[in-house]
Amino acid sequence: MTGDNSIFIGGKPFMNYVTGVVMQFTTKNAGEVCVKARGKFISRAVDVSEVASKRFLDGTVEVKGIKIDSEEFENKEGKTVRVSTIEITLVRK
Amino acid sequence: MTGDNSIFIGGKPFMNYVTGVVMQFTTKNAGEVCVKARGKFISRAVDVSEVASKRFLDGTVEVKGIKIDSEEFENKEGKTVRVSTIEITLVRK
Repeated sequence: MTGDNSIFIGGKPFMNYVTGVVMQFTTKNAGEVCVKARGKFISRAVDVSEVASKRFLDGTVEVKGIKIDSEEFENKEGKTVRVSTIEITLVRK
Repeated sequence: MTGDNSIFIGGKPFMNYVTGVVMQFTTKNAGEVCVKARGKFISRAVDVSEVASKRFLDGTVEVKGIKIDSEEFENKEGKTVRVSTIEITLVRK
């Protein structure tokens, strides 16, 4: 297994992301998966992590750690905008 | 200082919650404040925590820990519904 097992949460159908997380642990045999999101998708990242770890991988995967942070960038009008980010690390028990 | 310094995030204006957190640390001299939310308000709880700790209380308050969980309840139609929750604990440095 190489590379970084990150899943970025966006606007695709919810179950796409859940399946993505579950498959990293099962088919790809990952030991750790990081669920990442920004802004309004943060709630969704928590939902994906909860559903994947409690409904699909119950007893085998748990939350290792959660980090929140902020990113700043300039929008088209040249104004500085702040957006929150989250990283939820799920780990095989 | 008695009681539990929790701020529940909902649909009120954003700055109400930021002010609430900041005032717990300043006026009420709390050592620790817990920002809680459910469902779609989770993104907002992260925003409130980031803005309060980085813009208003920068250097004096930091994130101590973050917990995510799920709650199940029955809706009006008798169907079991799952909702994610978050608790972000901010602590005086």
